[in-house]
Amino acid sequence: MTVETKHIHISTKGFCDVIDITDKVKSALSLVSDIAEGSVTIFVPGSTAGLTTIEYESGCIEDLKSTFERLAPQDAHYAHNARWGDGNGFSHIRAALLGASLHLPFKAKKLLTGAWQQIVLVDFDNRPRRREVILQFMGK
Amino acid sequence: MTVETKHIHISTKGFCDVIDITDKVKSALSLVSDIAEGSVTIFVPGSTAGLTTIEYESGCIEDLKSTFERLAPQDAHYAHNARWGDGNGFSHIRAALLGASLHLPFKAKKLLTGAWQQIVLVDFDNRPRRREVILQFMGK
Amino acid sequence: MTVETKHIHISTKGFCDVIDITDKVKSALSLVSDIAEGSVTIFVPGSTAGLTTIEYESGCIEDLKSTFERLAPQDAHYAHNARWGDGNGFSHIRAALLGASLHLPFKAKKLLTGAWQQIVLVDFDNRPRRREVILQFMGK
Repeated sequence: MTVETKHIHISTKGFCDVIDITDKVKSALSLVSDIAEGSVTIFVPGSTAGLTTIEYESGCIEDLKSTFERLAPQDAHYAHNARWGDGNGFSHIRAALLGASLHLPFKAKKLLTGAWQQIVLVDFDNRPRRREVILQFMGK
Repeated sequence: MTVETKHIHISTKGFCDVIDITDKVKSALSLVSDIAEGSVTIFVPGSTAGLTTIEYESGCIEDLKSTFERLAPQDAHYAHNARWGDGNGFSHIRAALLGASLHLPFKAKKLLTGAWQQIVLVDFDNRPRRREVILQFMGK
Repeated sequence: MTVETKHIHISTKGFCDVIDITDKVKSALSLVSDIAEGSVTIFVPGSTAGLTTIEYESGCIEDLKSTFERLAPQDAHYAHNARWGDGNGFSHIRAALLGASLHLPFKAKKLLTGAWQQIVLVDFDNRPRRREVILQFMGK
């Protein structure tokens, strides 16, 4: 059993930018030595981004964006905005709802995700960001 | 320390079918050899189902269904439906919101869940499905 | 590789009480022996509380509370209430949506969370509670 922690970096446009990071996770997994079976913890540091899985096709992406706009509208009143004036209260709430971590199993060095199930980073902030994403592989 | 990956299969009715898989997880845990303390990653491949914990009583299940119908209504407009015509845009959105993975600790071969806290698979698709669920046990 | 399971206890006021447990997690991590790199599973037993990460400032906390009140209002109709009369149907639904577990990586004995990203326990119940939270550290 061992553990290996890797870092990848992603440039985003913010405003609910949904970015498919599946290939980056698979590529990192292929380079991990001594682990064939186990799981990867995917984690995004920061409080205005989240992670989930979704079928990465433009319709689903558009629907995800409009859903978050409905659940936590950008232009609603946020106490965070009143206090800090940075206007990204909606980003914090969306990120807290979606969650910053994901945990996926793999076996024989293959992710056990579905064929149409991609891993996505969602950047909710109100400006472009350079994001670090942690990939921590654990197993045998 | 070791890792063991198991697969279980569940038949669902779709349409926010909420299925208690706690006993299957406990049963799989009891059969794992050489691991008494650690955690289980529960993961559902596919992009129209999710996992969470809830008190499995008919009132809560009914409330969960009506909540998802309110948050992402089946009959709303979805760009996914416009593009693919399979009518399950709501399923994709609900699944992305709930999440496809769950991570639960155990000790002395007992899950550390609460007495009224069950593990549920929620199938959001718009038809019956045969689902595979991954149970990956890691620990010592 | 090893695993160590710790328990912490938190008194809450219920009603979407949001409690910063970051220092308790860091403190527990500092006391774990023989693990410098790995991840911590944070889990709350029970079906009326959840865990997430958020910037812990009073504006964000207020916004999170009002968001949950909007997504699953306390005074809406819940079948759970009709059946059990304990009036916490909204608590169960909010907890199932947010999730009871969190999984965070660390390296060199430091959590890889962002500077303004705190770990919070959210108690959705309709009364004060004494909560147990499980912290399970795994790594090398």
